[in-house]
Amino acid sequence: MKAVFYQGNKRLSVEEIKIVPPGPGEIQLKVKYAGICGSDYHIYLGDWDRRVKTPEVIGHEMSGEVASIGKGVRGYEVGNKVVVCPIIPCHNCKPCRLGHYNLCHNIGIMGMDTPGAFQQYWTVPAYTVRHLPDSINMRQAAMIEPLAVALHAVRRGKVTDNDFVVVQGAGPIGTLIALLSRMNGARILVSEINKFRVNLVHELGVEVINPLENDLAGYVHERTNGENADVVFDASGSTEAAEIMTELVGTYGRIVIVGQFPEPVKVNLRRILWWECNVTGSRNYGVDDFSSAISLVASKKLPLSKMITDIRPLDRLPATFEEIDTSVNFMKMLLKL
Amino acid sequence: MKAVFYQGNKRLSVEEIKIVPPGPGEIQLKVKYAGICGSDYHIYLGDWDRRVKTPEVIGHEMSGEVASIGKGVRGYEVGNKVVVCPIIPCHNCKPCRLGHYNLCHNIGIMGMDTPGAFQQYWTVPAYTVRHLPDSINMRQAAMIEPLAVALHAVRRGKVTDNDFVVVQGAGPIGTLIALLSRMNGARILVSEINKFRVNLVHELGVEVINPLENDLAGYVHERTNGENADVVFDASGSTEAAEIMTELVGTYGRIVIVGQFPEPVKVNLRRILWWECNVTGSRNYGVDDFSSAISLVASKKLPLSKMITDIRPLDRLPATFEEIDTSVNFMKMLLKL
Repeated sequence: MKAVFYQGNKRLSVEEIKIVPPGPGEIQLKVKYAGICGSDYHIYLGDWDRRVKTPEVIGHEMSGEVASIGKGVRGYEVGNKVVVCPIIPCHNCKPCRLGHYNLCHNIGIMGMDTPGAFQQYWTVPAYTVRHLPDSINMRQAAMIEPLAVALHAVRRGKVTDNDFVVVQGAGPIGTLIALLSRMNGARILVSEINKFRVNLVHELGVEVINPLENDLAGYVHERTNGENADVVFDASGSTEAAEIMTELVGTYGRIVIVGQFPEPVKVNLRRILWWECNVTGSRNYGVDDFSSAISLVASKKLPLSKMITDIRPLDRLPATFEEIDTSVNFMKMLLKL
Repeated sequence: MKAVFYQGNKRLSVEEIKIVPPGPGEIQLKVKYAGICGSDYHIYLGDWDRRVKTPEVIGHEMSGEVASIGKGVRGYEVGNKVVVCPIIPCHNCKPCRLGHYNLCHNIGIMGMDTPGAFQQYWTVPAYTVRHLPDSINMRQAAMIEPLAVALHAVRRGKVTDNDFVVVQGAGPIGTLIALLSRMNGARILVSEINKFRVNLVHELGVEVINPLENDLAGYVHERTNGENADVVFDASGSTEAAEIMTELVGTYGRIVIVGQFPEPVKVNLRRILWWECNVTGSRNYGVDDFSSAISLVASKKLPLSKMITDIRPLDRLPATFEEIDTSVNFMKMLLKL
């Protein structure tokens, strides 16, 4: 079977390896579709080298079928449609003891800390495997994991009916946050600089502006009759976006950090004090978020197919990452295995 | 009677002015004690010149007695011990309509936007006057207003039993936050660089360290077995303190901004995401906070007398502010009128 290994220093190799049967407590999956996440690209860039050993099979978004079942595993049959919840908590630290596995101090993420989904047959601990309804669209099912990330963020932001929500950064996570917020009854404005993504978000029926071409803060102020946004999500990780976020929220405004900021960013604490705003983070997802994501994909209520702009064969992954180095003309890119 | 006027550009004048009887709906108070707040000093420095007109009588912390009662005012008698709640909300904006007068978009603070307490007879709208129990200590009663500020902050930080709390900055507000947190059952560490204040906090039985002489983050880490603080209050307004605050909190840690930061400050958003921390602000106080502050002062449960390190006559205020320009060797300074 084929597998893609991260070899360090912006090198990925596609290799032919032997299929090994699953051990006790394990399930072997036939991966159908795997999604490319921003963090896969960051691994490729070397940003996670302290954590990801080499060579390692990366990838953690997927959908697949049960191919083979290890000893002692019950509740699964060959051919079952499934998805992997790739978080491996320690069950021992303080957040784990409180049930907040997403913040586990010793967290393992499959595809970073253990082998991942960018291989045709993926052997995983049975407890990470979740059943999918037979009627589910398997391409959309590969988006369950990022959808769980977005669901967690929207819950952290307590988005409700009539909120005015600004999402900075319309990658897959930001776009999903916008769609989920709209589903919760909120009014949405997305801020994005990439033209391909601006157009796609617009096609999804979500209002979107380019902050390089427009005065974002002024526009939000005007759109809300001076009251500003109730919730701002940063799904961009961009310094410019972070520096403006406090200008976008109003009294008691909630700011949810979803993007990764490698360096500290200048924040207007005076504004946070003045309007008793709230800045918080949203990391990974809880068990409940993941279950909700499965139900939501199965419900077909979200325009996920429109978000899947590319489906490529596994062995095009190395060339794809080289493409991303120069331009991003896609939303969610799937690999077909 | 004597009154102290801010004349702009670090100039205060003590003047003899005529006592005018209160108009309809007003009460004239004989001010007994008035407290000097950090914001009075900032007005003197010119930091609030866009807001404070000149000449203006400043000051908003006080205790006093009813001296004369205007037409149509009921429920007060000459000689009643009272305190003024110096917030004048518009009752019209969104926060006001939600009952959050502390965040009123058109807020007036007496002693900034209207004449203040640094005068022997102060005429105020009757609705700003709160009764005090006869048994109250009138010096301590002059600390009701800053105590309300601290109570609001502790409520914003949701300080409970067993929390580990770090307070950065041991001015009167920071010290009161520490004392209130201790009263709530929390373990407290105060961080302060001013020697006089370090010593006083130590005398109040609160653990205090000087972050210029010690590794604050390392110490908090060690004291909490690596779990870090549950709540960090910034009551310093210092850039150095703000930059370290994210290093002091643990998972779900709450950071409450109480100090004034004129300029944006570098904040580690990655840490906020990683541990799903919460940064919020605490501004002024609610009606409930002010009532609680009156009860708390009356209860004599807090060592407020130890915090009142200086009591000076009103006409020494100009010289006192010149002193503060060079050194701060006091905690709460009262004026006796």
